[in-house]
Amino acid sequence: MKANIISIGNELLIGQVINTNASWLGQTLSDIGWEIGTVICVADDDRDIRDALARGFDTADVVITTGGLGPTKDDITKKAVADYYGREMVFHEETWHRIEKYFTERKYPISELHRQQCYMPAGSVILENALGTAPGLRIEENGKACFVLPGVPYEMKYITETHIVPWLVKSGGVEIFRKKTFHTVGTGESMIADHIEAFSDGLPTNASIAYLPSIGKVRIRLSMMGGTQEEFDGYCRELRDLLDAWYYGEDDTNLEKEVARLMDQLELKLVLAESCTGGNISARLVQQPGASSYYLGGAVTYSYEHKSSVLGVSPDTLLEHGAVSEEVVTEMVQGALQRLGGDVAAAVSGIAGPDGGLPQKPVGTTWIAVGNKDKIIARKIVFNKDRSRNIEFSTIAVLNLIRKFLIAVYLK
Amino acid sequence: MKANIISIGNELLIGQVINTNASWLGQTLSDIGWEIGTVICVADDDRDIRDALARGFDTADVVITTGGLGPTKDDITKKAVADYYGREMVFHEETWHRIEKYFTERKYPISELHRQQCYMPAGSVILENALGTAPGLRIEENGKACFVLPGVPYEMKYITETHIVPWLVKSGGVEIFRKKTFHTVGTGESMIADHIEAFSDGLPTNASIAYLPSIGKVRIRLSMMGGTQEEFDGYCRELRDLLDAWYYGEDDTNLEKEVARLMDQLELKLVLAESCTGGNISARLVQQPGASSYYLGGAVTYSYEHKSSVLGVSPDTLLEHGAVSEEVVTEMVQGALQRLGGDVAAAVSGIAGPDGGLPQKPVGTTWIAVGNKDKIIARKIVFNKDRSRNIEFSTIAVLNLIRKFLIAVYLK
Repeated sequence: MKANIISIGNELLIGQVINTNASWLGQTLSDIGWEIGTVICVADDDRDIRDALARGFDTADVVITTGGLGPTKDDITKKAVADYYGREMVFHEETWHRIEKYFTERKYPISELHRQQCYMPAGSVILENALGTAPGLRIEENGKACFVLPGVPYEMKYITETHIVPWLVKSGGVEIFRKKTFHTVGTGESMIADHIEAFSDGLPTNASIAYLPSIGKVRIRLSMMGGTQEEFDGYCRELRDLLDAWYYGEDDTNLEKEVARLMDQLELKLVLAESCTGGNISARLVQQPGASSYYLGGAVTYSYEHKSSVLGVSPDTLLEHGAVSEEVVTEMVQGALQRLGGDVAAAVSGIAGPDGGLPQKPVGTTWIAVGNKDKIIARKIVFNKDRSRNIEFSTIAVLNLIRKFLIAVYLK
Repeated sequence: MKANIISIGNELLIGQVINTNASWLGQTLSDIGWEIGTVICVADDDRDIRDALARGFDTADVVITTGGLGPTKDDITKKAVADYYGREMVFHEETWHRIEKYFTERKYPISELHRQQCYMPAGSVILENALGTAPGLRIEENGKACFVLPGVPYEMKYITETHIVPWLVKSGGVEIFRKKTFHTVGTGESMIADHIEAFSDGLPTNASIAYLPSIGKVRIRLSMMGGTQEEFDGYCRELRDLLDAWYYGEDDTNLEKEVARLMDQLELKLVLAESCTGGNISARLVQQPGASSYYLGGAVTYSYEHKSSVLGVSPDTLLEHGAVSEEVVTEMVQGALQRLGGDVAAAVSGIAGPDGGLPQKPVGTTWIAVGNKDKIIARKIVFNKDRSRNIEFSTIAVLNLIRKFLIAVYLK
C-alpha cells in the first residue's frame, strides 16, 4: 500500500507555486492507510516526466501525477504518460462534448487548444472532473496503476476524493484502518503533547497519534491499523476525556460548522460587528452552505465613523477608551443587536498591525465580545506582530467565543 | 547551472509539513540564474537518501539536501551522505565547542544526542549556522558539490544566503537572468496562450513564457537567460501591449493592492455592500496594511431583511426582481453610498450554491455593481457549481470592476 507522487510544473521548481498538492495527497492517502514513498517534482518536460514515471513504478504499484493537463503548450503530461506506456493519443468525444457544452452555456469563446485537451492516452479510464475542463485519468498495466490529475488544487482534490480514494481503499485489501480526528482550540501543540504524553506512550505499536496544528487550533489524529473496534473506541474515549478543556468536535468539523450547528439547534439568529478582521469572520461563516438559516448579516465598521454611524457606538466612548477597548466592543455588540436585529451578536476590534500600536496597546491587542440582550462577555487577547496571523487568530477566537457563549448561556 | 533538491523527512510525505523550503530554494536559485532540475522528497531512510543522491548527481552538478540534521534518532541525513560517498563519520570538535557554549550560556541541559550531532562525513566543509545547533555541510568530489542543510526554514535560509548563494554565483559564471511577471484578470490561460501564440513562438530559445493561473486570474512570467537588457525590455513592452485587455500590473502586485493604489491616488473613500461573498471582498482588502486610508467599511447583508433595513433596498424591488438582480445590486450601491458614506460603492448579490438555484437563475448567477453618485455600472456573471469558487470568482470580479470603474470614470 505504497504510492509515489509526481508533481509536474516549472512553476513548482522555480518556487512560484508551493507544492500544497503533494502534502494534501500525503495527508489524504495516509488517512486511508496508504504510505507515500517519494514525491518528485519535475519540469513540464517529456523526458523528465517519463524518467519520473519509471522511477516511481520501481518502488510502488501506484503513481499519482499532478499538473500539466491545461490547454497550453507547456502542458504535456498526458503525451508524456502516453509515451511512457508506448500508447497512442486518442480523441475523447465525450470530454469534447462536455467542454463544448460548458463553454457554450457560458457564452465563452472556445479555441483549438481546448480540442487538444481532449486527446488522451489510449486505454485510459476517464475520471470525471466536475469542477474544470481537464478530467483525470487512470491507466492500469501489469497490475500497476497510474493516476493523472490536474494541478489546480480544487480539481485535484475533487477527483482524488471522488475517484481515487475509493479505488485505493478497495485495492488496499483487508487490513482495517481506523482513525478519528479530535479538534481542539485555545492551546498549542506542545502543551497538548505534554498533557497526553502518558496516554500516547501507552498506545500499542499499531496505534499512533499525529498532531496537525494550524493558527489557533490543533487537530489530534488517532489512528490504528488492525485491532478491534472496541479497543479503538476505548482509546478514543480516553483521548477525548484528556482533551476536554480544548476539545470542540470530531472528524469532519470546524469551528464554523460548530457555530452553525449550535445556532440552528437553538433556532437563534446571529449578527456580526467586525473591525480589525474586516469581514473575515463573516466570510468564514458564509463559506459553509446554509449559513442563511441563522446568519442575518454583519457590519464591517473599519472606520471610527462607521462604528458610530452604523452601530451607534458613542463618540465619547471611542474618544475616551479608544476603538480597541472593552467598552467599544461591548457597545458594538449592543449596537449590532439593536440595529441589525438577531438574538446573538459578536464584535471584534484590534490592532492588526504592522502599524498603529501604542505602548499600552501593542500591535496584536484585540478585544472580542459576544452577547445577547441579557448578557455580554468580553475578552482581551494579545497576539503577535504579523497582520494576517492576527486577523486569523482573532477570527478563531471570536468563533470560539460564540461557541462557548451559546453552550454556557443556552445549553447549561 | 542546474541543481537538484532533496527534501528529507517523513513529515513531508505524510503531508504534516508543506515543503516551503523547496519553493524558497527554487525562487532563490532561479533569481541568480540557476535552474532546479527536480525536487525529490524522501523519508528519513538511509537507502532512500542514498538513492536520491545518486539520481540527483545523474542530472546535475549540485545537489542540495534539506532536513534530517536534528538530534533525534530519525535524523540520519549526514550518515546517509557519508555512506553515499563511502566516507567515515568524524567528530568535529569546533561544532561541539559551539554547541556546548550555546547550551551552557542558556543553562539548557546538554545530552549525548547533541554530541552525536557533531559527527560529520570526513572532508566536509562546515557551513556555520548562526541560528541553530546543526551547521550545514559542503562536500565536493569529482567536480560536483553536495550541500547538506537543516530543515528548519530560517536556519536553511540563513545558510543558503550566507554560504551557498555566493558559492553558486561564483561557480555559475557571468550569465545574467532576467524575469518579469505580468498580472491579468478576466480571461483564462488558454485564451491568453492563443492570443500571444505568435509572440511566444517568435521568442529566442534563451527566453520563455510561463503561465500561473489562479481563480479568475492568470500571471504570465517572461524570463530570459543572458541577452541584453534592451532586448528583454523590448519583449516586455511587446507582451505588455498584447495583454492590454486583461493586464493590470507587474511583479509584486495583486488586485487588492491595485484597488488600494488607485483609491489612495484619487483620494476617494470606498464602501462595500456584500451578499453572496459574505464579507470576503472586505476581508481581502483589509489583508493589505493601510486599508483604513481609503476603506470606511461595509455591510454584509446576507438576509433580505438586511438588504432593506441596512441598505434601504426597496422590498418591492426585492419581491419583483429577486435578490440576485441588476435592480437590487444597483439599489445596494445607492444605499451604501447614502447610508455608509464614501465616494465609491461596490455591491454583489449571487447564488453561491450548492442550493438556491432557479431555472432562469442557476447556481453561480451573480450580479455585481460599482458606482458613485453620478454613475453606476452593473454586470451579470455566471460561474459554476462550487460554492467556494463562486465566492472567490465573485470577489475577483468585484475587485476588478472597482479597478476598471476608477480608471474609466476618474482617470480617462
